[in-house]
Amino acid sequence: MSTEIKVEEDVLSLNRKNASDNRDYFARLGVYVLNLMSGPGAGKTTLLERTAEVMGKRLRMAVIAGDLETSRDADRLAKFGVPVVQVNTKGSCHMEAHQVARVAKGFDLQNLDLLIVENVGNMVCPAEFDLGETDRVMVLSCTEGHDKPGKYPLMFRESRLLLLNKIDLLPYVYFDVNAAITDARAVNPGMEVIQVSATKGDGLPAWFDWIAQRVKQVRGR
Amino acid sequence: MSTEIKVEEDVLSLNRKNASDNRDYFARLGVYVLNLMSGPGAGKTTLLERTAEVMGKRLRMAVIAGDLETSRDADRLAKFGVPVVQVNTKGSCHMEAHQVARVAKGFDLQNLDLLIVENVGNMVCPAEFDLGETDRVMVLSCTEGHDKPGKYPLMFRESRLLLLNKIDLLPYVYFDVNAAITDARAVNPGMEVIQVSATKGDGLPAWFDWIAQRVKQVRGR
Repeated sequence: MSTEIKVEEDVLSLNRKNASDNRDYFARLGVYVLNLMSGPGAGKTTLLERTAEVMGKRLRMAVIAGDLETSRDADRLAKFGVPVVQVNTKGSCHMEAHQVARVAKGFDLQNLDLLIVENVGNMVCPAEFDLGETDRVMVLSCTEGHDKPGKYPLMFRESRLLLLNKIDLLPYVYFDVNAAITDARAVNPGMEVIQVSATKGDGLPAWFDWIAQRVKQVRGR
Repeated sequence: MSTEIKVEEDVLSLNRKNASDNRDYFARLGVYVLNLMSGPGAGKTTLLERTAEVMGKRLRMAVIAGDLETSRDADRLAKFGVPVVQVNTKGSCHMEAHQVARVAKGFDLQNLDLLIVENVGNMVCPAEFDLGETDRVMVLSCTEGHDKPGKYPLMFRESRLLLLNKIDLLPYVYFDVNAAITDARAVNPGMEVIQVSATKGDGLPAWFDWIAQRVKQVRGR
């Protein structure tokens, strides 16, 4: 094993330990934690704006917005009255469990139902780093092409739910919805799929209900 | 300096050495090498299909298609009669110089004008790894949002040219072209920009001429 691979293993192993601590901590406090992942520009922040607007009234929620640089996402989300903290990864391509642990302590977790972590826009690296979340959800925009699940299998394999976003653009792009879902389920047979348009609103009630149901299941444990 | 950072530095330092060797080698043979980068689904492969179709007749060109998994991109490009080799990075989020070196030897480089490396679809990590290319060019799809340059500055800073792709979708998405260009030039004042639609053909002649001019400049040295 080369030194490079060995140290990468150490980094992943330390992250797994931190993630496991996070998972125990969140479970003890009964907060449902969702790790939201996608490539850049798939619409995570717009989706979270709509989610905060509606679910911020139905549940006690907070958001951690991860980005390489800028506080643009947190600024957008702060308008909807839910607690939001920006984590700048300083050029790193993914969030790690220790960053979530550090920031999460700033929220009143005992009085939260739902904590959403918006990961860095990257379809590769974030999938390798467990944050201690309850569920992973990924967003694929239909402008990105239906061939993505086979090409970036890890994120699809690790996510409970696929949000197929920007479906309002389907008439204008070459994207075969059935092919995308078939490709996704080839790497993750149990993957749930909800088709949405975060800008136009299509499918969002199904997404909100999915969250509410998962929060209920997890907090009812 | 932590062990993690130290080894990452070692990896980058070894890659820089390999990239420098590649650069000398390509310069000696007079081949112009272009490293094409973007997030996933920005349209690199479609752009390369059109490029191979047209520039494959004007220049002697070859393509290295990098992907985590599958040979989907190489299969698409092979139809246009230019030599193409797929490199699977086996889950790694970027191409490295040694991979380019290994594969490039399989081409008749002395009789090539243009070698295009299609990097892994990722707006973060590929920008950290010099491949020994002559120029970096990046693709941003207007479906990804005009806020990307500030959020993912390194790739914008390192690229000579920005291809703003999918401009046929501008009527249907919220994307401010001037804001995107201003944001890009805030991190890279000299950045050239060409607006294209790889699927509809808009702007492609300007892109083809840009390549031809750069090949001429580099080979004329």
